[in-house]
Amino acid sequence: MFLNSLISRIQPLDEIAMQAVRARQDMLTKPRGSLGRLEELSIQLAGMKARPFPSVERKAVIVMAADHGVTMEGVSAYPAEVTRQMVLNFLRGGAAINVLARQAGARVTVVDIGVAADFEPIPGLIQCKVMYGTRNLARGPAMTRTEAEQALQVGMDILNDEVARGLDIVATGDMGIGNTTSSSAIVAAMTGLPVTQVVGRGTGIDDQGLDRKIKVIEQALAVNQPDANDAMDVLHKVGGLEIAGLAGVMIAAASHRVPVVVDGFISTAAAMIAVGLAPHVRDYLISAHQSVEIGHQAMLKHLNIMPLLDLNLRLGEGTGAALAFHLIEASTRILQEMSTFDEAGVSDKE
Amino acid sequence: MFLNSLISRIQPLDEIAMQAVRARQDMLTKPRGSLGRLEELSIQLAGMKARPFPSVERKAVIVMAADHGVTMEGVSAYPAEVTRQMVLNFLRGGAAINVLARQAGARVTVVDIGVAADFEPIPGLIQCKVMYGTRNLARGPAMTRTEAEQALQVGMDILNDEVARGLDIVATGDMGIGNTTSSSAIVAAMTGLPVTQVVGRGTGIDDQGLDRKIKVIEQALAVNQPDANDAMDVLHKVGGLEIAGLAGVMIAAASHRVPVVVDGFISTAAAMIAVGLAPHVRDYLISAHQSVEIGHQAMLKHLNIMPLLDLNLRLGEGTGAALAFHLIEASTRILQEMSTFDEAGVSDKE
Repeated sequence: MFLNSLISRIQPLDEIAMQAVRARQDMLTKPRGSLGRLEELSIQLAGMKARPFPSVERKAVIVMAADHGVTMEGVSAYPAEVTRQMVLNFLRGGAAINVLARQAGARVTVVDIGVAADFEPIPGLIQCKVMYGTRNLARGPAMTRTEAEQALQVGMDILNDEVARGLDIVATGDMGIGNTTSSSAIVAAMTGLPVTQVVGRGTGIDDQGLDRKIKVIEQALAVNQPDANDAMDVLHKVGGLEIAGLAGVMIAAASHRVPVVVDGFISTAAAMIAVGLAPHVRDYLISAHQSVEIGHQAMLKHLNIMPLLDLNLRLGEGTGAALAFHLIEASTRILQEMSTFDEAGVSDKE
Repeated sequence: MFLNSLISRIQPLDEIAMQAVRARQDMLTKPRGSLGRLEELSIQLAGMKARPFPSVERKAVIVMAADHGVTMEGVSAYPAEVTRQMVLNFLRGGAAINVLARQAGARVTVVDIGVAADFEPIPGLIQCKVMYGTRNLARGPAMTRTEAEQALQVGMDILNDEVARGLDIVATGDMGIGNTTSSSAIVAAMTGLPVTQVVGRGTGIDDQGLDRKIKVIEQALAVNQPDANDAMDVLHKVGGLEIAGLAGVMIAAASHRVPVVVDGFISTAAAMIAVGLAPHVRDYLISAHQSVEIGHQAMLKHLNIMPLLDLNLRLGEGTGAALAFHLIEASTRILQEMSTFDEAGVSDKE
């Protein structure tokens, strides 16, 4: 399978480039370490890209859209047709991710990987529908193993196409009414935490809806019995098509040494799957922000990654990742553009 | 005095503009509240600017540089001449603030308000030196009351000049070896907290240096007896010229309805002085980031403002504020560029 060949191609971080950046950071005209996480980021990016001056100029946000059969259980505050409507909004440039990506100088790549409706041929939409939404995970597997593999493959192909267009860094985004239910099921399955500790209000359900959502996820885990040690088993039983696609994006990105800016709850669920399939993917992940969704913290802990921002976001689409682009770019510019103590004639620490 | 006339001109936030933004945020194609602090920021900016679509396009970082007589007590890891050297670095564009301001599309205005050395006439440097650094605050007042008022006036004048050039938002930056000592003295004086709880390592002193710094500040407070309820008294006795200048910038900005992005420890000390002199200034402040300096948290609590970023920064110069510009601009673009549910034909919450 193509997946395994990609996984075997993922290299560890480049220690030589990281060492070069560490040394350079200490020569720049500022107290050592005073730029905190920006300095760490620059070192991490150098390791990912195996370059002492990593560039993040060419940026893309890949937004994967898909529907979820579980919405028939009433787990979301919004009707399922919003997935399709929001895809059209993305293509017209009116959604939050369009605004924030424009500001960050990033292109937005919109992929229909499993929306439960047909689209006319429409400029800008990449149509790679694997199926018309997942099945209801509360009653059985959301996908067959083969369908999940197909969705992973779509993600890998999309990332490869983006690399061909020119790509220095990629952010992941999602759209799919019902996908916080699937993501909560993934984190519960993979961490063993009680469902009540990893379920939030998604787009904004009320108390009654939250109770229903918890029961639905508990039922999904009981019915499907996903194996925590087999990420593909978890993915096809309780995952989503966009989550599979984003996991594919991450694996392919790591194989190309392209850093991945992981958005919020849904994207981090995809990261858990990607790292479950290919542990070295973890080295290529940058967590953009801490989501409001309570299960997100457990995901970040599981992956042992620390978010850059904490702005009470809970929108998805890649919005937090687009905001993080500015900080990541700042870290590379500092490295490239700041003067050293010698160049500037500034006295070093006594 | 000019100060009092400016202070009396500061208006409260505009409730009508804030209400208009609240209503618009709820019409945009996202779950209500899902952009968290970006939504709050957009409302706050509308209140500051009294406009339903506040713009932050024209940005400046005002970096005030000055020396501190207290450096003779050995409170800093760097020699005092670094203040002058870094001013030259700012003017050549090689410092961190130059890099980050360029990225954010902000101009950098460099002001010598009290560097203990002369500069040749040099393009880009605004020379408004009040004196050649403060006196040693461990032995007596750092400035006379009149000198502190002069420095405040410089800050107000600089801000007025920036408004004349065209200014939608301003960030504050500082350069001054020894200025964490002065800032720690200010927060201890104004909050009554023990000095040990508000003193950090500044540019990076060792344990012995930290002990010395604590003793110097305790001595400064004992010798000067600054009055917590009289910000001008605190400012002239234990403040700095750049701190006074930045406080002047903040007061004048508030009088023009120009939002102020407050950088880290030194800038927030200036904000405490500004708010002490003119309580309504607080409404015009946006805290950029949580500094590593331990006293910063006490300052933010005193002012009751919440930082946007937490990146372990401790550089000053306005670097954290320049990074925050991206988030602030994002909040205004969301308001301006996102489609409403109606425009996009997206179904609202059921």
